[in-house]
Amino acid sequence: MFSCWLSRLYWALSKPTGRTKPLIWGSLSRSLVLSSQRRIPELSSFVARTNTCGELRSSHLGQEVTLCGWIQYRRQNIFLVLRDFNGLVQVVIPQDESAASVKKILCEAPVESVVQVSGIVISRPPGQENPVSHLETKMPTGEIEIKVKTAKLLNSCKKLPFEIKDFLKKTEALRLQYRYLDLRSSQMQYNLRLRSQMVMKMREYLCNLHGFVDVETPTLFKRTPGGAKEFVIPSREPGKFYSLPQSPQQFKQLLMVGGLDRYFQVARCYRDEGSRPDRQPEFTQIDIEMSFVDQTGIQSLIEGLVQYSWPNDKDPVVVPFPSMTFAEALAGYGTDKPDTRFGMKIVDISDVFRNTEVRFLQDALSKPQGTVKAICIPEGAKYLKRKDIESIRKSAADRFKQEVLPVFLKASRNWNSPVGKLIMEEQGLQLIRLLEVQEEDVVLLTAGEREKACSLLGKLRLECADLLEAGGVVLRDPALFSFLWVVDFPLFLPKEENPKELESAHHPFTAPHPSDVHLLYTEPQKVRSQHYDLVLNGSEIGGGSIRIHDAELQRYILATILKEDVKLLSHLLQALDCGAPPHGGIALGLDRLMCLITGAPSIRDVIAFPKSFRGHDLMSNAPDSIPPEELKPYHIQVSWPTDPEAEKSSLNHPCHPES
Amino acid sequence: MFSCWLSRLYWALSKPTGRTKPLIWGSLSRSLVLSSQRRIPELSSFVARTNTCGELRSSHLGQEVTLCGWIQYRRQNIFLVLRDFNGLVQVVIPQDESAASVKKILCEAPVESVVQVSGIVISRPPGQENPVSHLETKMPTGEIEIKVKTAKLLNSCKKLPFEIKDFLKKTEALRLQYRYLDLRSSQMQYNLRLRSQMVMKMREYLCNLHGFVDVETPTLFKRTPGGAKEFVIPSREPGKFYSLPQSPQQFKQLLMVGGLDRYFQVARCYRDEGSRPDRQPEFTQIDIEMSFVDQTGIQSLIEGLVQYSWPNDKDPVVVPFPSMTFAEALAGYGTDKPDTRFGMKIVDISDVFRNTEVRFLQDALSKPQGTVKAICIPEGAKYLKRKDIESIRKSAADRFKQEVLPVFLKASRNWNSPVGKLIMEEQGLQLIRLLEVQEEDVVLLTAGEREKACSLLGKLRLECADLLEAGGVVLRDPALFSFLWVVDFPLFLPKEENPKELESAHHPFTAPHPSDVHLLYTEPQKVRSQHYDLVLNGSEIGGGSIRIHDAELQRYILATILKEDVKLLSHLLQALDCGAPPHGGIALGLDRLMCLITGAPSIRDVIAFPKSFRGHDLMSNAPDSIPPEELKPYHIQVSWPTDPEAEKSSLNHPCHPES
Repeated sequence: MFSCWLSRLYWALSKPTGRTKPLIWGSLSRSLVLSSQRRIPELSSFVARTNTCGELRSSHLGQEVTLCGWIQYRRQNIFLVLRDFNGLVQVVIPQDESAASVKKILCEAPVESVVQVSGIVISRPPGQENPVSHLETKMPTGEIEIKVKTAKLLNSCKKLPFEIKDFLKKTEALRLQYRYLDLRSSQMQYNLRLRSQMVMKMREYLCNLHGFVDVETPTLFKRTPGGAKEFVIPSREPGKFYSLPQSPQQFKQLLMVGGLDRYFQVARCYRDEGSRPDRQPEFTQIDIEMSFVDQTGIQSLIEGLVQYSWPNDKDPVVVPFPSMTFAEALAGYGTDKPDTRFGMKIVDISDVFRNTEVRFLQDALSKPQGTVKAICIPEGAKYLKRKDIESIRKSAADRFKQEVLPVFLKASRNWNSPVGKLIMEEQGLQLIRLLEVQEEDVVLLTAGEREKACSLLGKLRLECADLLEAGGVVLRDPALFSFLWVVDFPLFLPKEENPKELESAHHPFTAPHPSDVHLLYTEPQKVRSQHYDLVLNGSEIGGGSIRIHDAELQRYILATILKEDVKLLSHLLQALDCGAPPHGGIALGLDRLMCLITGAPSIRDVIAFPKSFRGHDLMSNAPDSIPPEELKPYHIQVSWPTDPEAEKSSLNHPCHPES
Repeated sequence: MFSCWLSRLYWALSKPTGRTKPLIWGSLSRSLVLSSQRRIPELSSFVARTNTCGELRSSHLGQEVTLCGWIQYRRQNIFLVLRDFNGLVQVVIPQDESAASVKKILCEAPVESVVQVSGIVISRPPGQENPVSHLETKMPTGEIEIKVKTAKLLNSCKKLPFEIKDFLKKTEALRLQYRYLDLRSSQMQYNLRLRSQMVMKMREYLCNLHGFVDVETPTLFKRTPGGAKEFVIPSREPGKFYSLPQSPQQFKQLLMVGGLDRYFQVARCYRDEGSRPDRQPEFTQIDIEMSFVDQTGIQSLIEGLVQYSWPNDKDPVVVPFPSMTFAEALAGYGTDKPDTRFGMKIVDISDVFRNTEVRFLQDALSKPQGTVKAICIPEGAKYLKRKDIESIRKSAADRFKQEVLPVFLKASRNWNSPVGKLIMEEQGLQLIRLLEVQEEDVVLLTAGEREKACSLLGKLRLECADLLEAGGVVLRDPALFSFLWVVDFPLFLPKEENPKELESAHHPFTAPHPSDVHLLYTEPQKVRSQHYDLVLNGSEIGGGSIRIHDAELQRYILATILKEDVKLLSHLLQALDCGAPPHGGIALGLDRLMCLITGAPSIRDVIAFPKSFRGHDLMSNAPDSIPPEELKPYHIQVSWPTDPEAEKSSLNHPCHPES
């Protein structure tokens, strides 16, 4: 319910941050200065009210106040609960004859109507403090109520499709269709206000503390080579199109060439991925670029940024963040974005089985990159049911073409595990030692090509974590925010459709790792990059790199290694030739970050007007048809599909129901 | 030149604001608190340098520093001027044998190459302070120089198309093509940094002082009714298009319905106007909306906003801003955006000629709305040449189909003024009194329908101001910023193509003036609105209104008066029915505002990567062709024009040369 959340938020924001570890480069003292000087904003300036509903306390007793808000609830035509963005307050409806018109207004206005009331703050009769029993939480204004003198109906509300407080229980399609009602819920108000406050603190950190310049870059741009996910915008010149860029990458680099030195932007970006759940066609990133910086510099900047802007109602963030190489992440967690809030790491047990007689293990180990790997699920025997294990084995076989075997300490429980009986006692002891197996644990074992085995176990690790938590184990503390840098990515990856050719692992402007530059000309697939990802609780929330500032190197990578058409990027290559400083940067995904911080089930809950799975605005019904004559100035016409199947597949969306 | 501008900027920003007049509603004390607490940002955190070039002073003597920057200039292989965004510093190239490698680097690197140097800050020999004679202004680092120990070439610069310092002299097309070089000029650095700082201060005012919530609204939206200037974006559904909105108007109103209470956004907006000089297809507005507010509230908010964010190197802004009705503006200045920095107001002199025998004045006065109007140009007889007057008369006749007559006090100078001789002495004296004519002044007189006469004289007033200033008269002080509210606009205007029908003067969500609501149903053309414009030095820099919050009224205006298809806005009408609070807002044009403040010749000078007149990005060559197969997923194809003339007119651009 609307209750203490907002006053808590403002209170939290006005507290000193109470940081414990000093930021490097002296930014701590500054940040403490700013934070402790923060004032609670004036919420009733310039408007008809004297106070917000949620701020009234015993300290306001006897004051004459004017409030504006929505009728949340009415009890027996005697009390009325008035709501605004800042909370709830109880209003006493006058019962005497002389106030008949006030009573009429307050008793007849439907719930969710907008009223303005003036009156005196009085204390509630003894025993009636916080009596609003239908509210789930304590009412911060519960010691007082308003004795109304005058009331004005500002806008009457027609019958709503449903009550505001029930909104979060409704289907998401309905919430999106009536987004303007959904926004009245305390959760959406909290999410959007916290987002605004965090972005503001990020701006203070970047702009006021570290001299970054907020530069707006264009969104009507030229298609980038291979930019298959870019929306196109027809111009008034026949056959000429703008493109909505996926990020300001080129512009931020050009700003460095232009000597801007330190750039940031809360940048709107666009990506047309057809339909993917939990992706939005437009999204926001905190976009940053610096000159004369190295990887450590960017990492320290971002650690300071997160620490400075972190909500004060959460546990403080500890810096520096731990760091892990891509190779370590893959080996230990089977993914490049490990969730480090819990263990169950992948362990290489190949050596245990070097001389095994188990045939499929032998086979696997004899192949190049062949390994045997395992994870140990603590108390798995207690929490994983037989059908869980079977479903795991089946999905591994079906989806990953890989066999997974469960191994139990107690041989009696080795359901369906042909390997159980074949493990020698010596091997069993080695497994117990390597995996630190306890009595009730389950070991999941797989064999095969190294990357595939790790990737599979990485997925099983998360699945098993879900299963354990469904059983009541607290594995991932919701109050814990586990940041992690992942570094030393490969610069190139084999193309999926033709593994003999290489493509950029991230983007073609990423600089190679200084130790690996010589390999570019001999074994480019072995070159590591100066790319870094920021991971939070197993989600990638940011990524960046030191960029190539040497035109020759950039040209070589584009033309010789990636075989791209260099002409399309000639302006960038030319810019690098004109005295480009060494530079690097990063982009943080704001929607995802806010989603993790607020614990929202979807990024749509931290965006005011999100699109549905299928990219629709369910409120206004966008995208919509346009009459052909309005397309004429743009020299385009619709090609109506003749084959309904082709149309279907072009939409390329899984079967997510939409209203 | 790069010199003191940046340190001045930072110094100015770190000063207390020195405001003289208190803001209403107690925001002054807060703003003073925040301003005086502002610290100079740390400009060398996280990077390879210890200091910026421009910050070094005598107080740094003896310090060992590391600098990174561009070689601006080299003198006889002895001195080198190093530049970064913060200024210039002189570096002494070591001449001794042991430092041969350092000398080689610093002497061989081409101008605009990027170098890193380390050395000691020493004082310049007596008599050689500030000796950089080729610089136009005093060098703030002129008392010191750097005795270099080590140097590193970070990136060599190929031959540039021209020198950086000459950039502003080049054609704009060339500057846009090499924007990354143009950005290195001190003027562009100043403009972009000031823009960033002002926006940051606006955010502090809105977010930290007054509790506004920064909410990002979508740019992929549904076409608004009559949104002929909206870019279209094909979606992956055949025939369905998104639209890039001209402003977040609908969303900000829906946020108020959603109880957000106070919203702001530095919003990217889009308008496809083909080609118009000094317009950009994408632009930025400070977008604001509040609940429970009236016109006075919004005006006070904005006055405080401008005052708080105003650059400290300019004279402080005085609030409240003066206000003028639309009718007064038209009558006195012939425009709805009067430049109030100078007089020369339009005066109605109809009464002087009520009984005239001059035929064309008689004719004009006998018609409905017929008037005789005049402006008095001070010292016009001295500064306006005969050919100026003739050109004025000719352009009035050609462009406005209206006769303009010059009248001089000295009858001998009444060139080409048939009316001069016909003015009776009594009439002459009345003119002198009404127009406060002095000996050397010229009166420009016209007769005709009221609005047309005013509009013509309004234009002549500005033309004559240009002519006077060309003659050396200081009429519009460049240090003077003259803000003005224009209020009480008409709610509707007759449609140009069919004057019997009405269209919204601004947009259909504008609320009628409370005193005029009854006229809606009888004489809607007479209804004034609650719209307000903010004008600065004769340019409109903002506009807003109190909105309609009553669904019935909104429906009546849309359907009955404007004859719009109500279905297209059904979501908004439905929202108004669900307890919409009274609300209003405003949008400030950031590009125009920055252009006026910096005194830039064009809004393109306050935008990092602007488009050309024709909407082109001259650096990357956007918009560009796209292969047909990349259009396929969007179910569109290009309709190539068959008639080359049609193509030309569709581009609809005047003959502005582009490179």
